[in-house]
Amino acid sequence: MSAQGDAGVADADAAARRGRPGRRPGGGDTRQVILDAARAEFAARGYENTSMRAIARAAAVNPALLHHYFGTKDQLFLAALEFPLQPRELVARIVGGGREAVGERLVRFAFGLLENPAARDRVLAVLRAAATNEQMARLMRGFIMRELARPVAAVLDLPQPELRAQLAMTQMVGMIMGRYVLAVEPLASAPVEELVPLLAPTLQRYLVG
Amino acid sequence: MSAQGDAGVADADAAARRGRPGRRPGGGDTRQVILDAARAEFAARGYENTSMRAIARAAAVNPALLHHYFGTKDQLFLAALEFPLQPRELVARIVGGGREAVGERLVRFAFGLLENPAARDRVLAVLRAAATNEQMARLMRGFIMRELARPVAAVLDLPQPELRAQLAMTQMVGMIMGRYVLAVEPLASAPVEELVPLLAPTLQRYLVG
Repeated sequence: MSAQGDAGVADADAAARRGRPGRRPGGGDTRQVILDAARAEFAARGYENTSMRAIARAAAVNPALLHHYFGTKDQLFLAALEFPLQPRELVARIVGGGREAVGERLVRFAFGLLENPAARDRVLAVLRAAATNEQMARLMRGFIMRELARPVAAVLDLPQPELRAQLAMTQMVGMIMGRYVLAVEPLASAPVEELVPLLAPTLQRYLVG
Repeated sequence: MSAQGDAGVADADAAARRGRPGRRPGGGDTRQVILDAARAEFAARGYENTSMRAIARAAAVNPALLHHYFGTKDQLFLAALEFPLQPRELVARIVGGGREAVGERLVRFAFGLLENPAARDRVLAVLRAAATNEQMARLMRGFIMRELARPVAAVLDLPQPELRAQLAMTQMVGMIMGRYVLAVEPLASAPVEELVPLLAPTLQRYLVG
């Protein structure tokens, strides 16, 4: 889907450069072109620095179409992200298969997601937006508490289960910041197989004790 | 210093509202008023969304004075932050006093800093800037590697010492994101004394094994 998306944006850019303001024939197609352009722009520049106008330009469509299909910038942002985390799947993976490897399964699941560039871009776009925009922070806060912390806490067999679920999240959020955003070395280039044995016991202790 | 700073900004705001464009008598005073205003604006809106013009307005000074005293926005940002971390002090605290409580000392040191609103605002301003601006991410990357990861790694007695120092940093960065930026509950309101026994073993294991 990412390759398709990039190709769509490249085509749109090329069309824009050739001076063909792109009215696309099918509505479904236009919607997808806007989503692909929005995803690329938000990932490259973050929520705050991306304008509806710039997305329309990248998609080579009339800006009015963005409002027609998606409403506000918030709404387009959330639609564009198709946030790649399936919380129910996450919970199932944490719980299923025995308590002794909860931390390792969670770390491997997270890296499976994050080492995929398209999924990583979406996670980074959400994090960047939440770091700089209070409205986005509120949206993400609600998402984390409702979709992650509470379902995970519900299956933990320890005191302070929500706090523990959130501490596990802080380790993963910090790892994302250090490896992919700040990109400090050697963390940024370390093979996943070197990171798993260092990170897994942290999550194991928070979630299982 | 924060109370002073806030008062300075408030005075400047009041002066601006009363229509007195503030030329201040002493150069040293003006410099401080600009720094206080810059700190407040960067903390509230982040690096990207703060303009030199808005800082000049908050400080009630001519925008040309900002360029005169500080040059570019980057330079004003770094000057305004007086980044509150003293890396040498941090390393000394980690190393000094026995290996059995390294994690706890580090966590307590970090909360001592972060629970102080003025210091926290500066840390958050740096993190927000680094999350959304590649130039700031590069500055912060250099700072972390030179001033934190390498000095800490130099005193660790384990394989992969730099990677371990950076993993400790990721736990603290993630905790800052979760508690102060995303502000998820119960993490955001949990007393420090509840967090220390949960976080300290993580840092202890990364840094001491």
